[in-house]
Amino acid sequence: MMQNIKLTIEYDGTHFNGWQVQGTGRRTVQGQIEKALLAIFKKKIKLMGSGRTDSGVHALAQVAHFRTETRMTPHQILKALNANLPDDISIRDVQRVGPKFHAQYSAERKTYRYTILNRQGRCAIQRNFCYHFSQTLNLRAMRQAAKVLVGRKDFRAFMATNPDLKRRDDDKNTVRTVYTLEIRKKGDFITINIEANGFLYKMVRNIVGTLLKVGTGKLPPGSLSKILGAKDRNLAGVTAPAKGLCLLKVEY
Amino acid sequence: MMQNIKLTIEYDGTHFNGWQVQGTGRRTVQGQIEKALLAIFKKKIKLMGSGRTDSGVHALAQVAHFRTETRMTPHQILKALNANLPDDISIRDVQRVGPKFHAQYSAERKTYRYTILNRQGRCAIQRNFCYHFSQTLNLRAMRQAAKVLVGRKDFRAFMATNPDLKRRDDDKNTVRTVYTLEIRKKGDFITINIEANGFLYKMVRNIVGTLLKVGTGKLPPGSLSKILGAKDRNLAGVTAPAKGLCLLKVEY
Repeated sequence: MMQNIKLTIEYDGTHFNGWQVQGTGRRTVQGQIEKALLAIFKKKIKLMGSGRTDSGVHALAQVAHFRTETRMTPHQILKALNANLPDDISIRDVQRVGPKFHAQYSAERKTYRYTILNRQGRCAIQRNFCYHFSQTLNLRAMRQAAKVLVGRKDFRAFMATNPDLKRRDDDKNTVRTVYTLEIRKKGDFITINIEANGFLYKMVRNIVGTLLKVGTGKLPPGSLSKILGAKDRNLAGVTAPAKGLCLLKVEY
Repeated sequence: MMQNIKLTIEYDGTHFNGWQVQGTGRRTVQGQIEKALLAIFKKKIKLMGSGRTDSGVHALAQVAHFRTETRMTPHQILKALNANLPDDISIRDVQRVGPKFHAQYSAERKTYRYTILNRQGRCAIQRNFCYHFSQTLNLRAMRQAAKVLVGRKDFRAFMATNPDLKRRDDDKNTVRTVYTLEIRKKGDFITINIEANGFLYKMVRNIVGTLLKVGTGKLPPGSLSKILGAKDRNLAGVTAPAKGLCLLKVEY
């Protein structure tokens, strides 16, 4: 029986060259899962992710789907996949979905979290999961700036120039709707949660880089409207490092 | 000027063969810090830890001291050490202390945390910092059992047989005072915090192993008094894995 299978996947992105198979033999999350699918189903299966994540970016609940002829139950597939995967990938959930479900095209909402360690000294235990930023940050200014980014906006100014042009057609439509953008502080850690109907290439990391410029006083909070309006990447801040980023949730 | 210097140290124990230099050339936390001290002070300096931690055990705030002739300020020493250490060790604090301060002998209280991931599926991101235990646990029974371990008791039943007898003189006095033993649940994670005036070899991991036996119904909560009284290691549970353990605090 042909089945359409939805996977929910957790991974530690530290030792991966991102999500997407690159045909270069480099270690990727998609590549490792396709290898496990080949071992289980004895045939080459194409896995479609909700979107790619860059090298070093983590996921608590990335979503992907694949189609295959099988009599295995979702629970059996989950067990078999985890038994065939390295320990920095864990399949958290497997579900049978309708034939039209597509991990990328059916996605309605995604949530990312960016984690900053804001203190003098670096940390050891969380080092691969946060960006160590030692300058003092004005959270009030950052929150004020963040408000400007909520809503349906053209985020072209926060889209990275993509070296591999064919790989995305972001350029055609750079309007996205950000539902929430929350900045929280807990001890020395600051987390920035962004929920949107979709994200442009490196959009979260560029927003975080710009908010950090606001937090250190290099940009006034009011400048965000101007940056959005000018649609010019050069006005925004530098891209924040990948390791602070984690895909928390994909909603359908 | 001869100074006695106290270090507070965070480390990710995953890629260390524990704290203590073993003379075998294996990578240890003490060894890495002594190497950094040699680079900074141009002489061999002996670092004394509050106690050793085993291979795979982590620390948020291990304490150690060393003596040296120097005019460097604590802040300069902190900067120099972090610049000379690998990223899985971070010196969190450096203080000048009185000549009598000894990281091990002056310690009055230590707190350890043991983290259990209690669900069916394993995790990827926290995999080196928790013990994945998939059987259902009766927390109420575990908390009831834990109460018996609080107070001044002979913990011989929870001391591991040490293969290297000379390295400890625990055997002489196995009485310790446990001040608190708290079991908390947050999502799928269960943490067991134990605060005591000192710990025997593998005491925390043996207590956790025994509490897990209680949690799965293999031991009645009431049996803890009997196990303590019999002072027999064979009655207690197996040693829980190292990677769930983290030294949180050493108080003086």
